[in-house]
Amino acid sequence: MRERLFEDWVVGERHETESIEVTREKALAFAREYDPQAFHLDDAAAEASMFGRLAISGWQTAAYAMRLIVESGIFAKHGGIGLGVDELRWLKPVYPGDVLRVTAECAAKRASAGKPNGIVRFKIDTSNGDGALVMSHTAIVLVPRRAPEGA
Amino acid sequence: MRERLFEDWVVGERHETESIEVTREKALAFAREYDPQAFHLDDAAAEASMFGRLAISGWQTAAYAMRLIVESGIFAKHGGIGLGVDELRWLKPVYPGDVLRVTAECAAKRASAGKPNGIVRFKIDTSNGDGALVMSHTAIVLVPRRAPEGA
Repeated sequence: MRERLFEDWVVGERHETESIEVTREKALAFAREYDPQAFHLDDAAAEASMFGRLAISGWQTAAYAMRLIVESGIFAKHGGIGLGVDELRWLKPVYPGDVLRVTAECAAKRASAGKPNGIVRFKIDTSNGDGALVMSHTAIVLVPRRAPEGA
Repeated sequence: MRERLFEDWVVGERHETESIEVTREKALAFAREYDPQAFHLDDAAAEASMFGRLAISGWQTAAYAMRLIVESGIFAKHGGIGLGVDELRWLKPVYPGDVLRVTAECAAKRASAGKPNGIVRFKIDTSNGDGALVMSHTAIVLVPRRAPEGA
């Protein structure tokens, strides 16, 4: 697999991923294991909640965004090692049957002198099938450098 | 189930959750579905990576933190509706067999005049079985108010 190193990232470049449908089965499986709240598990409880109907866990939306980015191959051989996330916002509920898609923009990069890696910040936007933004966040990713000594 | 409303939260109060062991089986299942990178799926690839051995996805750590908080019952009847996350940092790798535990501290709260909800910010620290901090983040949670009109 090709390499994509710190030096190869250009601030402002944007990548669009493929899409994925969130099925009811996967929504329930995730909620049972990781976010067992009534509005993620039970139709009647969800109808009585502010979601209005069964909504998926926001953490599952984040996890699917990760999958779409990984499958897009933008990190190539070395993968994307996440250091953290800033300003994640769940902007709209995601419901079973929704189709998610991600745009990742290289927002900033910083090399540390003498270190074998650099840090790249990506602005990640996750949208549903109507094109409405459902989640936004900034991913902070460790990316190996081609030239640890020097620029 | 008892209610815990916006007015009931006190800035500075801290809650410790139970713990949960991350099994290899669950680590692989999560990685296959949500973060299919070699260092989360394959022992040899993980040994060659900066993790040194198979590490779980950071998003799975975040998802388990959510589960531990939900199961602690601190949000009581209305649950915890997440608006977002600030300053999430994955500080140490988490490996299969690690036991995770969470401390949630009420860090700040803000009521919006005339709105039926308030916003509570929680400082969430996730530690492993050695007591080492593996992840920290701030959760921004919508909490229903008892008294929409007034204080």
